[in-house]
Amino acid sequence: MNIIYAIDLLGTMVFAISGAMAGHRKGIDIFGSTFMAFVTAIGGGSLRDIFLNIRPVWVEDGNYLLAIFFGVFISVIANKQLYSLAKTFTLFDAIGIGFFTVVGTQKSLDYESSSIAAIMLGMFSAAMGGVIRDVLINETPLILRKEIYASACLSGALLFVLLNYWNFDNGWNAFISASLVFLIRIISVKYNLSLPVVEMKKEEQL
Amino acid sequence: MNIIYAIDLLGTMVFAISGAMAGHRKGIDIFGSTFMAFVTAIGGGSLRDIFLNIRPVWVEDGNYLLAIFFGVFISVIANKQLYSLAKTFTLFDAIGIGFFTVVGTQKSLDYESSSIAAIMLGMFSAAMGGVIRDVLINETPLILRKEIYASACLSGALLFVLLNYWNFDNGWNAFISASLVFLIRIISVKYNLSLPVVEMKKEEQL
Amino acid sequence: MNIIYAIDLLGTMVFAISGAMAGHRKGIDIFGSTFMAFVTAIGGGSLRDIFLNIRPVWVEDGNYLLAIFFGVFISVIANKQLYSLAKTFTLFDAIGIGFFTVVGTQKSLDYESSSIAAIMLGMFSAAMGGVIRDVLINETPLILRKEIYASACLSGALLFVLLNYWNFDNGWNAFISASLVFLIRIISVKYNLSLPVVEMKKEEQL
Repeated sequence: MNIIYAIDLLGTMVFAISGAMAGHRKGIDIFGSTFMAFVTAIGGGSLRDIFLNIRPVWVEDGNYLLAIFFGVFISVIANKQLYSLAKTFTLFDAIGIGFFTVVGTQKSLDYESSSIAAIMLGMFSAAMGGVIRDVLINETPLILRKEIYASACLSGALLFVLLNYWNFDNGWNAFISASLVFLIRIISVKYNLSLPVVEMKKEEQL
Repeated sequence: MNIIYAIDLLGTMVFAISGAMAGHRKGIDIFGSTFMAFVTAIGGGSLRDIFLNIRPVWVEDGNYLLAIFFGVFISVIANKQLYSLAKTFTLFDAIGIGFFTVVGTQKSLDYESSSIAAIMLGMFSAAMGGVIRDVLINETPLILRKEIYASACLSGALLFVLLNYWNFDNGWNAFISASLVFLIRIISVKYNLSLPVVEMKKEEQL
Repeated sequence: MNIIYAIDLLGTMVFAISGAMAGHRKGIDIFGSTFMAFVTAIGGGSLRDIFLNIRPVWVEDGNYLLAIFFGVFISVIANKQLYSLAKTFTLFDAIGIGFFTVVGTQKSLDYESSSIAAIMLGMFSAAMGGVIRDVLINETPLILRKEIYASACLSGALLFVLLNYWNFDNGWNAFISASLVFLIRIISVKYNLSLPVVEMKKEEQL
């Protein structure tokens, strides 16, 4: 349990750093950047919990907010070093979304969502923080652009639910499913892969 | 009960088709279009349920998500045919918002919202999915543009609450109120009607 | 209790006026402006209540929605006079966010959030309505621009939680903390103050 909790806080911090950096890049003040960090780190899990009709974990456990402030602090004092770490960041982010996907899917199943909703909500946990962040700064959300990001999460959540259904060992299931998210994400970045688009005559309006 | 459930799934599917088509038109990949379908079909009802502090129906009943996937599937295989059906679609959409308005208003009253909140939440059920969809793709939401859409829903919800207050037969009430939404929507599209705007000196800022 | 309730309704109305005026300025129809009024007045508190997993107060108490409609009505009949009152409005708004910050922080503590979450949620209560409003009309939210607004709320919420922790008299605490919000806001508007931005090389992308 303790290691899960530690990874959860660490993942929250990494997401907070990425949110705060997006704010700094946009020339947003330190308060706004902290808000962006918060939204990025907390948004996905909160949305999952709201749909499950339970209280998001950060409302009662202050450590999550402290992890976010610590992430913002790092983004301020180390912003120049962080730029040269872009590749490392993609790596950490890929680990992070793998982890959050598995944790989110498990939590949804624990709170008796249907299997198919658990897959959606697992993906939401990992990917929706970034969507809300992008909407706030008026950019088209990542999820609607060509990169493979949320679909990597979805694949992992699907695998997790399937293996769970077949009574596969839970620890191994978590590890394998998170690894699948990680691998799909890393491979798609490395080879610049994307999903197909349905062709339409764009001049026509429905 | 069974016919309500069937119409509810059908309405969800129609909304999903319209969301997915909006995605295809924007050149969004198949995953993003599915996400758009989900948001359009589920957004309004989920928001209503979140305000009522109950769990959205799709979290436990997987059929709603299946209806959405089926809608996306149709939007992919039949996207050319669907274009020539634009008028039919406006028709279906008008039926859909009538139905969702009535169902949403009834559900809000069932869960002991005030009458005035039930009217708002009934309108939300039908119209907010499209608002969230538009915000995601960075367009000014329909509700803030000149077309009569959400206000048609509001009229129907108002009528439903009034007739309900006067102990009018529930089945007839549902039929009449949904028809009102349908008629206002269809007539306003046909005659290109819009609501008045309050004139302001636009150069001044408050 | 009664005076708190009256101020709460009054604050809701003032926020509704400001939301409706934003709608009129954008050339949005009367329905859309009412929607904007609703979102601005109700958005922050509703978000706080959703995170606390309780039902927003306006769902059961219709007076809040009536206060909003009354605010919209005022914005329509008195829109020319309201322009010449811009300064008065900044004043009222500053009183409003002070009040909503304190009420929101207190409510969060009452519902057993952590202290640090109560500070966040107190700020949310006052500032998030405007954020949602700005997202809807496709503008960069106030919270992400240079003005000191949400950070004033945050300071007040922080002070309230600290004084509360030290068992300071609740009435005086509320008054002092709300005054802090008011003063920071008014002084920052008068002297055009802003928070620092973390410098980054903007051409680089993480």
